[in-house]
Amino acid sequence: MSLNTFGQLFRVTTWGESHGPALGAVVDGCPPGIAVSEEALQVWLDRRKPGQSKYTTQRREADAVEILSGVFEGVTTGTPIQLLIRNTDQRSKDYGDIAEKFRPGHADITYWQKYGIRDYRGGGRSSARETAARVAAGGIARAALAALVPELAISGYMVAVGPHGIDRERFDRDEIDRNPFWCPDAEVAHAWAAYLDELRKSGDSVGAIVEVTADGVPPGLGAPVYGKLDTDLAAAMMSINAVKGVEIGEGMAAAALTGSANADEIRMGPNGPVYSSNHAGGILGGISTGQPVVVRFAVKPTSSILTPRRTITKAGAETEIVTKGRHDPCVGIRAVPVGEAMMACVLLDHLLLDRGQTGGARGAIGGA
Amino acid sequence: MSLNTFGQLFRVTTWGESHGPALGAVVDGCPPGIAVSEEALQVWLDRRKPGQSKYTTQRREADAVEILSGVFEGVTTGTPIQLLIRNTDQRSKDYGDIAEKFRPGHADITYWQKYGIRDYRGGGRSSARETAARVAAGGIARAALAALVPELAISGYMVAVGPHGIDRERFDRDEIDRNPFWCPDAEVAHAWAAYLDELRKSGDSVGAIVEVTADGVPPGLGAPVYGKLDTDLAAAMMSINAVKGVEIGEGMAAAALTGSANADEIRMGPNGPVYSSNHAGGILGGISTGQPVVVRFAVKPTSSILTPRRTITKAGAETEIVTKGRHDPCVGIRAVPVGEAMMACVLLDHLLLDRGQTGGARGAIGGA
Amino acid sequence: MSLNTFGQLFRVTTWGESHGPALGAVVDGCPPGIAVSEEALQVWLDRRKPGQSKYTTQRREADAVEILSGVFEGVTTGTPIQLLIRNTDQRSKDYGDIAEKFRPGHADITYWQKYGIRDYRGGGRSSARETAARVAAGGIARAALAALVPELAISGYMVAVGPHGIDRERFDRDEIDRNPFWCPDAEVAHAWAAYLDELRKSGDSVGAIVEVTADGVPPGLGAPVYGKLDTDLAAAMMSINAVKGVEIGEGMAAAALTGSANADEIRMGPNGPVYSSNHAGGILGGISTGQPVVVRFAVKPTSSILTPRRTITKAGAETEIVTKGRHDPCVGIRAVPVGEAMMACVLLDHLLLDRGQTGGARGAIGGA
Amino acid sequence: MSLNTFGQLFRVTTWGESHGPALGAVVDGCPPGIAVSEEALQVWLDRRKPGQSKYTTQRREADAVEILSGVFEGVTTGTPIQLLIRNTDQRSKDYGDIAEKFRPGHADITYWQKYGIRDYRGGGRSSARETAARVAAGGIARAALAALVPELAISGYMVAVGPHGIDRERFDRDEIDRNPFWCPDAEVAHAWAAYLDELRKSGDSVGAIVEVTADGVPPGLGAPVYGKLDTDLAAAMMSINAVKGVEIGEGMAAAALTGSANADEIRMGPNGPVYSSNHAGGILGGISTGQPVVVRFAVKPTSSILTPRRTITKAGAETEIVTKGRHDPCVGIRAVPVGEAMMACVLLDHLLLDRGQTGGARGAIGGA
Repeated sequence: MSLNTFGQLFRVTTWGESHGPALGAVVDGCPPGIAVSEEALQVWLDRRKPGQSKYTTQRREADAVEILSGVFEGVTTGTPIQLLIRNTDQRSKDYGDIAEKFRPGHADITYWQKYGIRDYRGGGRSSARETAARVAAGGIARAALAALVPELAISGYMVAVGPHGIDRERFDRDEIDRNPFWCPDAEVAHAWAAYLDELRKSGDSVGAIVEVTADGVPPGLGAPVYGKLDTDLAAAMMSINAVKGVEIGEGMAAAALTGSANADEIRMGPNGPVYSSNHAGGILGGISTGQPVVVRFAVKPTSSILTPRRTITKAGAETEIVTKGRHDPCVGIRAVPVGEAMMACVLLDHLLLDRGQTGGARGAIGGA
Repeated sequence: MSLNTFGQLFRVTTWGESHGPALGAVVDGCPPGIAVSEEALQVWLDRRKPGQSKYTTQRREADAVEILSGVFEGVTTGTPIQLLIRNTDQRSKDYGDIAEKFRPGHADITYWQKYGIRDYRGGGRSSARETAARVAAGGIARAALAALVPELAISGYMVAVGPHGIDRERFDRDEIDRNPFWCPDAEVAHAWAAYLDELRKSGDSVGAIVEVTADGVPPGLGAPVYGKLDTDLAAAMMSINAVKGVEIGEGMAAAALTGSANADEIRMGPNGPVYSSNHAGGILGGISTGQPVVVRFAVKPTSSILTPRRTITKAGAETEIVTKGRHDPCVGIRAVPVGEAMMACVLLDHLLLDRGQTGGARGAIGGA
Repeated sequence: MSLNTFGQLFRVTTWGESHGPALGAVVDGCPPGIAVSEEALQVWLDRRKPGQSKYTTQRREADAVEILSGVFEGVTTGTPIQLLIRNTDQRSKDYGDIAEKFRPGHADITYWQKYGIRDYRGGGRSSARETAARVAAGGIARAALAALVPELAISGYMVAVGPHGIDRERFDRDEIDRNPFWCPDAEVAHAWAAYLDELRKSGDSVGAIVEVTADGVPPGLGAPVYGKLDTDLAAAMMSINAVKGVEIGEGMAAAALTGSANADEIRMGPNGPVYSSNHAGGILGGISTGQPVVVRFAVKPTSSILTPRRTITKAGAETEIVTKGRHDPCVGIRAVPVGEAMMACVLLDHLLLDRGQTGGARGAIGGA
Repeated sequence: MSLNTFGQLFRVTTWGESHGPALGAVVDGCPPGIAVSEEALQVWLDRRKPGQSKYTTQRREADAVEILSGVFEGVTTGTPIQLLIRNTDQRSKDYGDIAEKFRPGHADITYWQKYGIRDYRGGGRSSARETAARVAAGGIARAALAALVPELAISGYMVAVGPHGIDRERFDRDEIDRNPFWCPDAEVAHAWAAYLDELRKSGDSVGAIVEVTADGVPPGLGAPVYGKLDTDLAAAMMSINAVKGVEIGEGMAAAALTGSANADEIRMGPNGPVYSSNHAGGILGGISTGQPVVVRFAVKPTSSILTPRRTITKAGAETEIVTKGRHDPCVGIRAVPVGEAMMACVLLDHLLLDRGQTGGARGAIGGA
């Protein structure tokens, strides 16, 4: 991953700012012959788009995606796919405050320090709007995965909002689409609603933890030791705005386990190895085991809040700032489809990489 | 990062297996004119090498590094630096057990599944011995950083062993080199000693959390949105053997904070911006702020333990395995110098990348 | 260079087909603060655009470039610049012939063989229209070079059309813009006009040789041994449609020289080394010497001709084809601005790479 | 290609200087399970090694290659292969002359200008000794190609020495291994012998043209528009020391052809398309056609000659230099196995890339 491109064979380059005319992604290296349409991509974009509940920003964007290249007669041609999304609600306003003051927790100050210029109309390139392009690209990756590995299923959901985590005993995959939080635990979803209502009224925000799983990932994906599957997933998730931590399987909690507790014992099933547990999150030595791949990431609280914060101006004067405008009280909610999209892109890239190097041949276990 | 190479401008390629004749790294893109010697590199390697206390593996390796190219008359020439470390203690033993059985928690099964062949004499390419090459490469990076940014200081230490964390109130940087755990809290270091003695006797192992900080990092390093500094640090740390989670600044705990609690307020200091706190871990929008860069990673417990574990053979038969041999009861200890090395490599790479794109020019704040 | 991206730090990704709605380029890694405008870019695009004389295709394209991102208040922000060019003259016609038959000398057959699908409405991704995106990206590179190395000047021109080469004795740089062939030899330009008129009438086409020079290139650009300046220039030029050969300095003719004839002897000038000759084309060991960088490339004759050619259909039947439509009798003419653009992109990339690795420091010669 | 690495999936990183202890290559991304041995690699190295006839340098190097990693029980494991070649004949001598004076036509001056330091004991990194590492890596590529595409055959030979070209009518592939020039024309080989004897006695040198062909390349290799097969071949060949021009198929001569003469007409053969001619050199639109891939490159005359040449010292003083020592009167001879090695590496890389993206599926022609 470097500059604005990620992936080796399935390669995504995103571009565009929050307050420019448009943003998008060039998706290169996609296998040819994959059925793709604007309508199919739109389904994924609609999951991420703002303004869908009172818990996300009220900015109104259709997030309509246009395919400008790389698809002909309904299928990918193997050449670059340009996905364009127009910005339609860059509300005219007085940017003076942001233009001169650096918003704490935002990239205002670092973009200024690095580049000596920044687009002060909004977050510019550092805005979460950039993630719309990821979701569009992820839609292409999903379509290719569906063709190449039909049994592969990606699922993202929230497992914590602020201090309130889900109860794994109540985990119900069907629940995820039934509440505005992608929450698999119906009970805690109600608690989140109340908690976020209160936060929103107080002009504050809160962080969250998102989990993304992939079932049906074939064993053998990942290329040690610097192109490990978990390495690329960590980078992919950490590159999402406001993410501050990434975990695979047991994650940080692995530190507290003993070796005997952490071992995923192996047995022989009818179709190959089966495991007694999945502390490893589906990855050993950087290579997929065939178990579900499990990734979690923490999203920090939205930095744009109504509570006044101390800051400085470009001229170096000390001052305070209040960030009015349309913001997410918990930006983690909209990170769920983004995490899914990154999972899809990384898995497809590794599938193609593995096919390139090994031809997809596999060491047999027990004659299978 | 891909295959066995990481870095864009400062690029490290490692090679070699645990039981082959040698391993090493090619370091490419190093600035020319940097003073480098085998002796100076050896200092870093000695910190990582096995057998230094009863808490690490008793394998005896001198880990003596030879510079085969890229250094002339004591300084780097700008061309590739080959660092070679011979394996000297690949003890002859009966590998039959490992050759046929897959050790749970190890990459045995995934290497077999991906490549259809693996070096069954030991971990092969997935062994923690590979990290010796990283430490050697990190020594080159440190030398270059010392020349380019003399005020930059990297420090790694353990903050938890199993369930026992340090007390931040007792944090003493001078303590780090005084105990076999790189522990900044003298009191908890004693507790760790007792805990690990017990574990070792019971043939078990445990995980750990390592923190690596870098003070004096100039603002402006990192290239959004996929070459963010935190993205590359996450990938770098996750690529270390047995790492299951990576955190920047507040890390996973950021999820539980409110926006008002998480804001690092900005004030004006004599030499530029100063911050009331560092929840961000020195990185905003993927770009360094000038505050200390703070990274933590969790190392899972060593998978090689004396407790019998259920597993299968290549032929698909169910069986049990006990991993005898020389192993670390807490492999996290030796991960400390590795984490430092990865930090050094990533920071240097981003320093060069930033110098390439921007020339190191910076947007002025308050005339500074 | 790989897939549809070239460059390491200054990175260009192009996308789009000849008969799709649009094409363009994402330019990433550009230094910030460079003055850029659609008007300034248009100047370069207008040099390449079709239909400017009877010697180029009569397809009418405005080739109007829109900047969709990465430029704010007239200067580059350091983030990706999306350059979009709409196709406006994709004339509706009967594609049946091309859809089923493979045009000899075209990529029809290889795209089909590789991807199993191709955009049969025209050349699709393999069309020379793709080069409009290169010219737009080259405009960005030129703007950055103008800011960073004001004395650098790039000049492209034709040195041969079919069997008719220029006379170097009559070389007049001012002549280049005065004829429709970018020809520095006014006399041979007349011969070319007559020759091409005849060819055009006979429905045939012819090849050409283009030379691109860069004066004022600082010494030290290029990174041996696989990122040599000449290596990257060779790749850049060879990637242009229809190019079959690339030469640096003396080029293929170097094979016929003796070492004593080929030596560029070195003397000391007031500002550093000066050379008695430039057989090397400004590059030694892959690194620029400070002399003019000289590259030449051969463009094969346009494959779309009115003379019937034998070919086969997708069904494997033998047949004949005549390629009607709007084509360049000598596509080499429009390759001149494309070659200039590639030179600009490669030089800027190497300037940034060198600045990254070495900081632009130089070994002194004679105290300079 | 960048710094000292080339290839995307099959990736070669070379290191080492002409007068250091050793040089070599790390080969990463090789398919697993490929039979490889030091003995098999040595065959290729012996073809390139110096001192085999009076027409190449008298430096005596065994060029014995050691495999330090990535091969276990006789086959590749899929992990990095370290190939090490020790320098054994770095004859002790007075380097004073080279240390202070820049040899015209050599990289002495540009390495100094770029890096501010260079290994003055010889060519250092810019020496043709580096190509031994390419040949070793090429041996790995050949082994993989032999396993994956058994019918693929690579052949390199000289087609011109100075002004004396071969007569294509007398082309005899069996002749190539029978003379010290890899010359397919027995008659001109005698002329070359006489010509080079004379040159050698006069202390001069001369250039040459090498042609490398690959038969049996499957159609579909190459990834437009910047990862074209010809683009990568051009870069690969141009990266070889002293190469000044690269041609594909008709090459520079394509410029003089008409479209009707240049068209490779297509007919239907029993196993797919066949072509009336191969002006394209086996590549259309950057993708292989299935015809022989034909590349030629010009090697300039050795710059190290006994004829005195004017030059300057590091201190800026004007002087003369004579390069004594052991040099090739025609370095093009030893470039033949190097060109073959680069061809093998590029083809394997593209084979893996194509397999990754497309799975090797092909658009059918005529039901085949």
